[in-house]
Amino acid sequence: MPLLHQMQVSGNCYKVRLAAKQLGFEMTLRDYGVKDGSTRTPEFLVKNPNGRVPLLEFEDGRLLPESGAILWYLAEGTRLLPDDRWGRTEVLRWMFFEQYSHEPYIAVARYWLELAPKEKLEQKRHLVPEWHANGNAALGVMETHLARSDWFAADRYTIADIALYGYTHCAADGGFDLSAYPAILAWLERVAEQPGHVPMAFAW
Amino acid sequence: MPLLHQMQVSGNCYKVRLAAKQLGFEMTLRDYGVKDGSTRTPEFLVKNPNGRVPLLEFEDGRLLPESGAILWYLAEGTRLLPDDRWGRTEVLRWMFFEQYSHEPYIAVARYWLELAPKEKLEQKRHLVPEWHANGNAALGVMETHLARSDWFAADRYTIADIALYGYTHCAADGGFDLSAYPAILAWLERVAEQPGHVPMAFAW
Repeated sequence: MPLLHQMQVSGNCYKVRLAAKQLGFEMTLRDYGVKDGSTRTPEFLVKNPNGRVPLLEFEDGRLLPESGAILWYLAEGTRLLPDDRWGRTEVLRWMFFEQYSHEPYIAVARYWLELAPKEKLEQKRHLVPEWHANGNAALGVMETHLARSDWFAADRYTIADIALYGYTHCAADGGFDLSAYPAILAWLERVAEQPGHVPMAFAW
Repeated sequence: MPLLHQMQVSGNCYKVRLAAKQLGFEMTLRDYGVKDGSTRTPEFLVKNPNGRVPLLEFEDGRLLPESGAILWYLAEGTRLLPDDRWGRTEVLRWMFFEQYSHEPYIAVARYWLELAPKEKLEQKRHLVPEWHANGNAALGVMETHLARSDWFAADRYTIADIALYGYTHCAADGGFDLSAYPAILAWLERVAEQPGHVPMAFAW
């Protein structure tokens, strides 16, 4: 059975757990700590030189890092990924948007404000306004889209929604006020109502 | 004919021009300036609320931002994208790596050190060591992979190579010394030898 190297509080890892649960993809989990450097050990770096989780390890030894690539692998041939060229392109458009314009501000603000040791936060405190400005810009792009469409791609729930849900649903942890984004709030509810939905804290 | 909204000096736009040229994808270009705010006008934000290029605009009005999604669209069904599930997953793994762990440091260092107004650089000067540390970490991940494989995915030249070539080939502009990465230097030569290769400055 494949093994997911992961952290329970990581939104990137949650995306993979959520998709796997909804698709019936069986895997075991190995948990890593957020603050203990356990993804930077020589042993782990052999598996992923980039030192990050999630990392999916197959029984034949193949190793797959990057949450977006893992989501794609799991969803291929399922209801969570369209079959047609344009629908798949739209899914990727939003997944790249999330990793470049959303996660580096919304997830990073959550990490430093909610999860990191408080004494280390002080070294990063001057960056909080920039994280909030850029994160709110990303939320604005989402709001504009969701004012016109129920879903991000292909008019249905896909891994693009899962990718964006991962850190949007817990954006308040990073100091973001989602009450200014009614279309996002309605979409968060739609995602949580999907069959097989599990929350981030769900015990595997 | 599709229209690519783009900047000539942007590596993200160069990736799209390079793939399009190698695949015979016909499009026209509309150039934007790096420093004139022309991708933040109300007129442009209607087309891409994220205010970024490249943006591919089709004749029927469809709009596609995100260089990774555009590359995927162009390469679907061609030699630049494998047909099989694992090969496609590997391509995406490296494309997400590039946008998350490589571009934000290597492209950003190049922008501020080479392209931005010099007086603005002074406000960012304290970030240069962090860009160089994280950018060199990304180059180290690439070097480790290329010491064992000629290409990033599926044992052949794909859009994963194009995505990583975009800003790696001009990393020196951001103060990176590639002489410490012999496998990357050899790969850069292999990419430049591919049929139909064009340099960033190529006039469309």
